[in-house]
Parts: sequence; C-alpha cells; structure tokens
Amino acid sequence: MRDVYLVGAGQSPFGAFPDRSYRDLFAEAYRAACDSVDGGLEAEDVDEAVVGTLGVGGRQLGLSGPAVTEHVGLHNVPCSRVENACAAGGFAVRNAVQAIKSGFADVVVAGGYEVMTDLSDDVTKYWLGVSGETEWERLTGTTFSGVYAQMASAYMTEYGATAEDLSRVAVKNHGNGAKNPKAHLDFECSLEDAVDAPTVADPLNLYHCCPTSDGAAVAVLASEDVVDEYTDERIRVAGVGAASERVGLAQRDRYTGISASQVAAETAYERAGVGPDDLDFAEVHDCFAIAELIAYEDLGFCEPGTAPELLREGRTDPDGDLPVNTSGGLKSKGHPIGATGTGQVVEAFDQLTGRAGDRQLEDPRPRYGLTHNVGGSGGASVVHVFEREPEGVAR
Amino acid sequence: MRDVYLVGAGQSPFGAFPDRSYRDLFAEAYRAACDSVDGGLEAEDVDEAVVGTLGVGGRQLGLSGPAVTEHVGLHNVPCSRVENACAAGGFAVRNAVQAIKSGFADVVVAGGYEVMTDLSDDVTKYWLGVSGETEWERLTGTTFSGVYAQMASAYMTEYGATAEDLSRVAVKNHGNGAKNPKAHLDFECSLEDAVDAPTVADPLNLYHCCPTSDGAAVAVLASEDVVDEYTDERIRVAGVGAASERVGLAQRDRYTGISASQVAAETAYERAGVGPDDLDFAEVHDCFAIAELIAYEDLGFCEPGTAPELLREGRTDPDGDLPVNTSGGLKSKGHPIGATGTGQVVEAFDQLTGRAGDRQLEDPRPRYGLTHNVGGSGGASVVHVFEREPEGVAR
Repeated sequence: MRDVYLVGAGQSPFGAFPDRSYRDLFAEAYRAACDSVDGGLEAEDVDEAVVGTLGVGGRQLGLSGPAVTEHVGLHNVPCSRVENACAAGGFAVRNAVQAIKSGFADVVVAGGYEVMTDLSDDVTKYWLGVSGETEWERLTGTTFSGVYAQMASAYMTEYGATAEDLSRVAVKNHGNGAKNPKAHLDFECSLEDAVDAPTVADPLNLYHCCPTSDGAAVAVLASEDVVDEYTDERIRVAGVGAASERVGLAQRDRYTGISASQVAAETAYERAGVGPDDLDFAEVHDCFAIAELIAYEDLGFCEPGTAPELLREGRTDPDGDLPVNTSGGLKSKGHPIGATGTGQVVEAFDQLTGRAGDRQLEDPRPRYGLTHNVGGSGGASVVHVFEREPEGVAR
Repeated sequence: MRDVYLVGAGQSPFGAFPDRSYRDLFAEAYRAACDSVDGGLEAEDVDEAVVGTLGVGGRQLGLSGPAVTEHVGLHNVPCSRVENACAAGGFAVRNAVQAIKSGFADVVVAGGYEVMTDLSDDVTKYWLGVSGETEWERLTGTTFSGVYAQMASAYMTEYGATAEDLSRVAVKNHGNGAKNPKAHLDFECSLEDAVDAPTVADPLNLYHCCPTSDGAAVAVLASEDVVDEYTDERIRVAGVGAASERVGLAQRDRYTGISASQVAAETAYERAGVGPDDLDFAEVHDCFAIAELIAYEDLGFCEPGTAPELLREGRTDPDGDLPVNTSGGLKSKGHPIGATGTGQVVEAFDQLTGRAGDRQLEDPRPRYGLTHNVGGSGGASVVHVFEREPEGVAR
C-alpha cells in the first residue's frame, strides 16, 4: 500500500475560551494547518475530512464533523466524525491514513475540537465521566479523576512509587509547556508545588491532573503520489497501531498497564520497522501523572515498575535520551478532549520540521517521533510513529 | 487496491424495546451476522471494528464503540465509533471498506445501534433534533420532522406533488415491511389510511414519518485475500461514495435535492462502473416520505420532479423494474438511527444471497443492489453499490 505523509499541522491555542465557538476554534486550527503546508492548501485540494470530538456540552451532537468542515469551506467532500473519548483526535488521524492508503483520497484533513469551559456544571464530574464506563463507574459516582486514582493507587502499591514520582511528571511537563505559546497552563512548577497541591482524588492532587481545556487541532495528510506538490520535506507516517480494551477498569486483569496501548505500540513499531530505542521524542497521553508513568512502560520505554527512574534520571527531559511531551503534554499544554490527539501530531510535525521554537530538539534534529493517545482509562489507544525521511531517500 | 466483500450481515428486530440494553441488541445483531457467514466467524478472525451510533439518550457517550464490541468478545482489536447522525451506520461500513483496502485489516465488523424508546422526553423533539443544525434549527424550536416538512413544502410547490404522492411511499414500504419479520411497523396501510393520518409537521402526517425505533445491525466485510475462507458466494463492494454538505437547510441553495447524495451516488456509480439502470434493487433513506422522493432523483433513478410518477406507475414496487426498500425502509422496518445504515446492508446481503424470505426478488436473483444512507437533512450521505459476482468470475 502506498505511503502517507504528514504535510501540515496546526492548532488554536489550548486554554479556557468560554466565549469562543467550536467552529471558530476549529477554523483557527484549520487555517494554521493550511499555513503550515509549504506548498499551500486550498479547499479544492482536500478529498476527505475526519473530525474527532467527544461532543462535551452537547452543542452539535449529530453531524458534528460536517458542522465544522462546512465552516472552513469544505463542501461535498466526505466528512465523518470519529469518537473514542479522549482518543478521538488520534483515531481521526488513523482514519485519514486509512482513507489515503485505501485509495479513496490523496489529501485528507484530520482534526479535532472541544469546548468545555462554558458549561455551568462540574465538567470533570458530569461530562468527562462519559469517558469512563457508564453503569459501574459514572453512575455510581466515580469521577474520571477517580478512575485514574485507582490506577495510581495500584501502581504505588505494586511498585512502591511515591507522590514525588507522580509530581516529577508535572514538573517536567510544566517546564516544557512554559515554552509553548499555545499551552493552556504555560508556567513552570517546582517539585514542592506539585507535591503539596490539594488533593483531587487521592492519591492524585491538582498537579497530577490535566486542566479542562478548549481548543482545536488539525493535521493534513497526503499520499506519496501527491506529497511533492505540498512539501519538499517528507514526514512519513511510518507506522500506526490501535486497539480497544474493556472500557471499565474493574473488568480488566491489571490496573498498572493498558493493554490497548501495548498492542497499539507493538503494531506501530512493527509496521514502522523501528523500536522504542529508535525514537527521538514522544508525545504521550498524560491526562493524569500516573498515565505518563504507565505509558513509558506500555510503549516499551522501560520495564514495568521502572518509569519513575526515567523521570528521576531526567531521561525524558528535553535534554535526555528520549524527551517526552516537549509540548507540555496534556498536563500543561492542555486537554481539549477531541483536539488532544491531533494536537500531539502538531508537536510531532513541529519537532520533525524544525518549527518547535524554544522547544526545538536539536543536534541532530529528530528523525523519529511517536504520538500516543488514550481513550478513557484505556478503552481505546492509538499510536503513530512519524519519520522525517532523509533527503534523497530511495522511494 | 484490493477488493472488499460482504460476507455476512445480520440484525436484531427493529422496534420498541425500552427494556433492552444497547449492548444486548448489538450482541443479537452480531450473533446474527456471525451466523450468516457461511464459513462461520470467530472473534479471533476479526481484525477491526467500526460502530455507528448517534448516542441518543446519552448512555455511553464516550467509547461507545468499544463499549459494545467488548460485550461480544472482541478484545484488543482497533474499534472506533463513527457518527454522522442518521448516516452513522452507513459510514461505519464505508470506514470498514477503507480499513480493508488500506491493508490494515482483512476482516472488519461494521455495526450500528440505537436505543431511543426508553426516554421520557419527546425523542423526536429533543434528541432527533440533534440531527438538525443546532443554533438555527434545534434551538429555535424546529423539530426534525419540521426540517423535512420544509423540504416537502418546497417540493410540492415546485413540482405540484400532492399528499397522495407522499402517501404512496408509505403504502409501498408498509406493504414490504409487512413481509419482514424484523420490521418495527409490520403491517400494511391503505392509501386512504396514509392520506388521512393526523398531521405531524404540515405537510407531513404520521404516515409520512418513520417511527422512533430501537435496534442494532452488523455487517461483516472481508478482503479478496481471505474471502474464500468465509463464503463461496462473493458479494463485492463494487462502489462506495460519500459526501458532506451544509448541515442547516437554510444554508443551502436548494431544498428539493440533497447535493451530498448526488455526489455520493455519482462517486459510487463511477467506482462500480455501473449506473442506476443496472441496479436490481435499492434501499434508500426514507426517514420521511419526501426523503424517498428526493432520493429517487438524487440517485439518478429519474429526473427532478418526476419521482411521484415512478411510485404511481409502481416501478419501485417489488415487481417493478427497480424495487425500492423491499425491507420496508425506515418507514416500516424502522429507524434506530445508528443501526439504520448497516440495516440497509443487511437487506442488500439477504437479497443478493437469496435469503430475503417472503421479500426475495427472483427471476433472476438480483446482481446489483444499492444502499443510500443520509445524515440529518442531508449534511452527510453515503452510497454503496454491491455486486453478486457471477460464479467463476475472473479475479
């Protein structure tokens, strides 16, 4: 099957924009994505669109894909919405890859959006709870933070991890997000700040939880047959993997790993022909601090129970051997549900093309980057490996 | 790109099942689909799953795909939900085709479900309204019936169509649905019954509107590389087309046609290498009687304004030259939103493989069938053309 390339990506700022519409945010991301395409992108170039959103707040629950693509002038192209809770955006990118590889399309726009901060009810309690399982989690009163708190408790019990281990995720990601002009919480925090924050769902405190964010992100993908019309620098989608798993935590054998992420990563590595050691950076799904620790292990960065060591040793810092969440991650950059997965792809695009500003990884510029997007507490997961092809690569 | 085949399809009954869960209905459809596969289908055969649902009632709004596939024993396969209002199920089948053609999967389950009759509020007014446009339709009080009523008014004004013309859709489809053991409204109606029914949204009366239904439907698709493991009778997905259009009716140039359907049909015919004259039957999206009239024209069955003639002349009756909605259509078989599009594919499978019971089209058994699934009032549309390959066909 033919290769697929990432030829552009852009996003709105992530933050609290209760006065902005989802259409407006999507349009800003779409324009940014179009502007990022070296050869430019016009509506008539686009063959298909895929849009990820959870639909928090119930604005346009039906036809929520076409409702934003019509606003940016994409008419009479197939547009569908994909929903996989917090992994909607990542699955949108995967669907776009399928659309191109299948021969249905040469250029596909994959985007995502969410607006949550204009709701008067407690968003985390009522709306984000829909990312958990309904009968046994949400309707019995378990918040979404509460679900991840159970995973954190299990991890701390099984491996002896501490509040400091969790807090180092916040310190690193806030340090990165402070350099990202699009980040929601664009300030640094100290280890002391992060350890001493008020409890949200024990053992998780405020600094162990990502914010409730609004925003949109868009990626543009193109087939190998047309990629040269859009860019001279080829960023290939080297591998994609995805899987689903039991939605409810209590239905699973193990709380300290997410099997959907493990399967997704194995598939993506196999298709890309690379392994975790080849990666130059990764954007992982850190909706809660415990999620980043578990991600290191599910993605094969380290053995089970040893993720805290990677953080303690600074190996996932920007100057470490595998920088993780240079964007700030969900923790600092923000987590506008449907936009998060495509937002990770924006960071991958920026790092691979040398556009990441103060966060740019250099000497040498990265060749391989991974994105990892989880739905709910692991009911779905999708992993992409992107490769900047060396110039003059044999096709 | 490699060919894709429909190797199985099944459904739950469509009807009012307020005491049944969406999982239970999906499982019944899944079992029926597995049973319909000649060579049998086990969970380990399935490489991917796509699930369409609008999520009416808000049961499992997040991860609403994996929430049903886990229940039927599909674990660690990629599963995502696709939403395009009432076209969710049809787009699920399209995504499955892409997944196979892209090389990501050999066997894909495409399903859909909806449970609506357990809601205490007026489903049509509050929930189905989400299939319309939000700000200018739903929030200003336009019901979904009201949107189609505007299309009916425009059509009647422009072409001089009458209440009898609309009512003939009901008479034909109820006649068909009365022979379908899975139909929600499995009784016949006379032209007089249909003309004299109480008004819902003028000019549409009760017999011009489909019911509010619960149900699920599942299709099983396989690549040409594995199709022979599952069946000796090859039903090929000959062509697929889809498009989106402005969600709100008032934003469009024309109320008497749906451009998304026109583009979707043109694309599907072109890819299949056939035209409307080659079709032996069609399942079209008749959520309201006017929708079936418009569908005839959008799909190229006749010229604009002449659909009532086809009905008057009985050409879309089971013994006509192009039988339409032999299943009973949305009008009689029912319209459990997310299940509707895959439900149409169930009828296509049954007709092409000779399993349609009292509704079976014969002499000769059909070779080409079309399914047409519309989201909202035309914000999205998807068309499939299926072909029963002659035995011994050159591959």
